[in-house]
Amino acid sequence: MKTVQTDILIIGGGPAAMVTVATTLENYPNKSITLIKKEKVSLVPCGIPYIFGTTLGDSDKDAIACGGPLKDAINVIIDEVNDVDIENKKAVASSHIIHFDKLVFATGSVPFVHQSFQAALKLENVFTVDKNKNKIDALKAHIDNCKKIIVVGSGFIGVEIAEQIRTLHKEVTLVGGRHILAESFDEEMAMQAETILDEAGVVMALGQHATKVIEKDTKALGIVLEDGTEIYGDTIILATGYQPNTALAKKAGLKLARYNGIWVDEYMRTRNKDIFAVGDCCGRRDFITRDPSKVMLASTSAAEARVAALSLYGLQHLKGFNGTIAIFSTMIGNRAFSSAGVTEYQAKKEQIDYVTGSFEGMNRHPGTIPDASKQSVKLIALRKSGQIIGGQVIGGKEAGEIINIIGLAIESELTAHKLFAFQVATQPLLTSAPTTYPIVQAAKQIINA
Amino acid sequence: MKTVQTDILIIGGGPAAMVTVATTLENYPNKSITLIKKEKVSLVPCGIPYIFGTTLGDSDKDAIACGGPLKDAINVIIDEVNDVDIENKKAVASSHIIHFDKLVFATGSVPFVHQSFQAALKLENVFTVDKNKNKIDALKAHIDNCKKIIVVGSGFIGVEIAEQIRTLHKEVTLVGGRHILAESFDEEMAMQAETILDEAGVVMALGQHATKVIEKDTKALGIVLEDGTEIYGDTIILATGYQPNTALAKKAGLKLARYNGIWVDEYMRTRNKDIFAVGDCCGRRDFITRDPSKVMLASTSAAEARVAALSLYGLQHLKGFNGTIAIFSTMIGNRAFSSAGVTEYQAKKEQIDYVTGSFEGMNRHPGTIPDASKQSVKLIALRKSGQIIGGQVIGGKEAGEIINIIGLAIESELTAHKLFAFQVATQPLLTSAPTTYPIVQAAKQIINA
Repeated sequence: MKTVQTDILIIGGGPAAMVTVATTLENYPNKSITLIKKEKVSLVPCGIPYIFGTTLGDSDKDAIACGGPLKDAINVIIDEVNDVDIENKKAVASSHIIHFDKLVFATGSVPFVHQSFQAALKLENVFTVDKNKNKIDALKAHIDNCKKIIVVGSGFIGVEIAEQIRTLHKEVTLVGGRHILAESFDEEMAMQAETILDEAGVVMALGQHATKVIEKDTKALGIVLEDGTEIYGDTIILATGYQPNTALAKKAGLKLARYNGIWVDEYMRTRNKDIFAVGDCCGRRDFITRDPSKVMLASTSAAEARVAALSLYGLQHLKGFNGTIAIFSTMIGNRAFSSAGVTEYQAKKEQIDYVTGSFEGMNRHPGTIPDASKQSVKLIALRKSGQIIGGQVIGGKEAGEIINIIGLAIESELTAHKLFAFQVATQPLLTSAPTTYPIVQAAKQIINA
Repeated sequence: MKTVQTDILIIGGGPAAMVTVATTLENYPNKSITLIKKEKVSLVPCGIPYIFGTTLGDSDKDAIACGGPLKDAINVIIDEVNDVDIENKKAVASSHIIHFDKLVFATGSVPFVHQSFQAALKLENVFTVDKNKNKIDALKAHIDNCKKIIVVGSGFIGVEIAEQIRTLHKEVTLVGGRHILAESFDEEMAMQAETILDEAGVVMALGQHATKVIEKDTKALGIVLEDGTEIYGDTIILATGYQPNTALAKKAGLKLARYNGIWVDEYMRTRNKDIFAVGDCCGRRDFITRDPSKVMLASTSAAEARVAALSLYGLQHLKGFNGTIAIFSTMIGNRAFSSAGVTEYQAKKEQIDYVTGSFEGMNRHPGTIPDASKQSVKLIALRKSGQIIGGQVIGGKEAGEIINIIGLAIESELTAHKLFAFQVATQPLLTSAPTTYPIVQAAKQIINA
């Protein structure tokens, strides 16, 4: 048992931990920092789906080295923390005892599997998508020897994995909700994604839950849907979401929020002002609706980590993290799909008095520019004030940054009036025409609604 | 002489006029609108450079039809206005007299040529870059029969035209200031653009003014630089900027601002509250420095037009247009270059107490994603408040939208603190890593400065 003394201890190895380390180093250059994590090599979480197709094709290409580029400036320990004694500021790992002044939980998330499927996890061809290199390598090796894969779950990870596996010309069936990506896109947007997946040859079985696995000996043969339909396959991937990894925090006596994330305030502090939590392990609320949120995003985690690092020894950023704006992007075929804030569907459910504005144009101008393609923007705003509360974009790769304009508008509580006359850069080879910039056009519809 | 009666008269055929028409139609559906313009076919202004290379290759591909898609909803007259009688609300064109209630000048800009070169304009192989299809076609035809072209002026139009002509494997010499694009990019950014132009084979003669044209009979043989260097060529293109086209407004007795744009307030009103001016013909001020500004951009014009159209019969948008933020993008080789607000060079000149933050990373994550390339962001902020006053981006095509995030931050008077913890969408195929989003990283440097 080795004893370690540190000013700041960070538990975890994902993006939230990395950003906490980087920001703390800059903000408190004189404090000692220790990072403890279970595995030497971490994966870039959102890169995982691309290991399964032709894009990366190998988990080594998705690896982050131990401690990242900052490893020489901090103390990195590869070990598992089994207990945290909050009162005595002490973490007990398998072969280390670490005394700390400030502690940051960045323990991330683990796959969520519905109760009716948990028993099936013991079968040799049923997998979850773990953020763990060995488990991902095992799944990848298994898929390479299979012909027909069933992906259960039509969120971002399910859709991306299904699309990537299909690039290997394997049969893929995607089982999911009323529409794919339904938490982030309204029907008319999601259907465009479904058309692309369909054309790529991904079979979609949407609108019904998978109820159970058909087993034989140690293998799964397929799944059964609510109406009794049976779908057969030789691999079953359960991409049914993630849950906060908070067993350690709970054992230490920290208060958990709804959905079992660690309860934190706007400064990422637990009720103990020396103990922080950042990333998927903490309890989140929605920026707009204030409901507890299940959104898990590395980019959100990074924002939380920055706020925590600015708050460790005194608050520097007023109400630093004020809820997740659920800002997502993905690529399906050669189209980018992005979303931020609430969808129209959610706005209805939340009884928000909203209006929408939509515009479809071209992402270059004139439309005769060789790589021009369609670009659609939908904005959702409060009816009376015009405040922007959500947006969705479909377009070329630039859509991945257009959503960040909308995200900034939501987070800064800007109105459609502001966006209607905001000054943008437009250029023939890079953007829409100045006369039809899609955010402006959608904002105009809202003003005229 | 035909007499016409209209509620709203708009003079001009460019983007400012088009957006005024579109917005007025929606905002005042019951008003009659008349657009009067000189030429039936207008060109997309920022598309003009691409007519000269392989990208468009033909002015027909850069044409906007007469009155655009809205022509059926308004009255379009092809004619030239020779006089405006403001007191009697009457415009007199060559074959029309138009009585109006509200008038919008959108007469655009014409090439600016330094006095020492004006006599050379009569030579058969000396050209300006006019926003006029016939003139552009003439220049294009001439270039197609030439071998060695000299472009004088290293602003956006000069650089884009030089780069495009070089795609035809002609010899091109670009004559310009201390660096290309020096009004929009600081030295370390501009030099990256120069390297690309150099590798593409564009010869650059920078740091000296061209002082005169070497003439023989009716032709120019070349130009002479300040130090006496002679550069020979068979076409000379003067891309030395534009000036407001305000002869008509001046004749009508409207007050002009410095640099001869029509004086307007934040609602695009002249001193007469029934007469408006939008686009390049109006006098502009800089959003940050409040100096009179020579920036001419279709996107800025579009923003002004929207504000004017919301202000024709009563102000609806408080201080709608509060100065240009000079937000530009271009593409050089396969790299996008974007800029907004003040550069560091300008900040020094204006005696602004500023700090900068810079970051270079990758535009995909992990960097092993096949189309990943470098991406740099520089931010300029007020030292004490951290308020963002400028930004520059170099990257893949997404840089054309990243600058619009920075532009929105400048226009909304956001600080580096806000950007440091703002929530962004990141995705392997579309953006940088969540841990190293370049705007956030540059903002962090500013906070730590």
